[in-house]
Amino acid sequence: MPQQDRAHATREAILRAAAEEFDRLGYERTSLTAVLTRAGLTKGAFYFHFASKEAVAAALVERQDELWAEVRQAWRIRGVDPLSALHGMFLESADRMAADVVLRAGVRLNAEREIGYPGVPNTHMMWEKLIGTYLVEARERGHLLPGVDPEAVARTLCSAALGARLISSATTSCADFPDRLREVLRHVLPCVVPAGWKLSGSHNAPEEVIGP
Amino acid sequence: MPQQDRAHATREAILRAAAEEFDRLGYERTSLTAVLTRAGLTKGAFYFHFASKEAVAAALVERQDELWAEVRQAWRIRGVDPLSALHGMFLESADRMAADVVLRAGVRLNAEREIGYPGVPNTHMMWEKLIGTYLVEARERGHLLPGVDPEAVARTLCSAALGARLISSATTSCADFPDRLREVLRHVLPCVVPAGWKLSGSHNAPEEVIGP
Repeated sequence: MPQQDRAHATREAILRAAAEEFDRLGYERTSLTAVLTRAGLTKGAFYFHFASKEAVAAALVERQDELWAEVRQAWRIRGVDPLSALHGMFLESADRMAADVVLRAGVRLNAEREIGYPGVPNTHMMWEKLIGTYLVEARERGHLLPGVDPEAVARTLCSAALGARLISSATTSCADFPDRLREVLRHVLPCVVPAGWKLSGSHNAPEEVIGP
Repeated sequence: MPQQDRAHATREAILRAAAEEFDRLGYERTSLTAVLTRAGLTKGAFYFHFASKEAVAAALVERQDELWAEVRQAWRIRGVDPLSALHGMFLESADRMAADVVLRAGVRLNAEREIGYPGVPNTHMMWEKLIGTYLVEARERGHLLPGVDPEAVARTLCSAALGARLISSATTSCADFPDRLREVLRHVLPCVVPAGWKLSGSHNAPEEVIGP
């Protein structure tokens, strides 16, 4: 393996080992020693790539930021209606979280950082706003029942998604997060869309009827 | 003030000062020094009542346990139908959390303890089971739409309540938790009850129609 590839592989091994510890224990309780043991690396190899435990955590947080931006962009390009895009993004996010410890750790670290330092911009408020824009657009297109408040639906969906992620994460390492999130959508969306409303080309649920 | 009353007042002052710190910062980041400064007490006074920071935290966790048991018991005695009891307990809990820092701290500490030590019985799973029993009873009485899975509704409600509490706690010290929880109930219950279904004598919402 050329030296550059080897360096890249080592960096990835560190990120993955750190993610496995952070995902289980959170930032505070994760020790660098445990990460090194897991990765089978020396301190020297570690410090060649990262200045500190905090630096690895920052890289994981950044990676999940980038991934969510990509997921949003991919759904924008797909050009489906806003409610189908929202539904698809929720389920795709859950699938990715269940499958990817690096992503899970990034999400956990991001959330912990915010609880610890209230100055950091609040990701959940950002998600609520973002999801609210999809619902506002759905209302403008006549895809919501009259009287439904898009922001209130956004708050409910974000709360439920956050809670489902935490419970699922604590009990099954997010393995049942996709099922839990599917249940949430099934129990909220029929309250807000007209009868017989159909999802178009949603993630893992093409043409599903979600109306009451 | 007789000595016994004074001792009781000091103990309560410690619990309250500790609750204010724990509620803001969580267990790890709370320092005993900050608690003492807030309570205006010496270390000696503190150690007369509690052996350690952990002991105060344990007392706060125990207090919230007792309070939830009382709330459940009070709603059982009221004898309303299971769905109205559930609705009432949810809203009463949110109101209490918004009003009482001692309760909020106990709830936060309990949740943190579970994340830290996976051996501790999982409170959220217990809540899901408990709430599931109310929904199963509601189904048996014909208060749920055919095809509704009581356990799935319980999981959705618990997830949404947990998420709402955390977001509300991080952004408004739980001041908007009652509103957020009300929204959750308004977006989930109409999906699961028959048209025109009426809450009877619920907390702060007597005779509200929640059916679609």
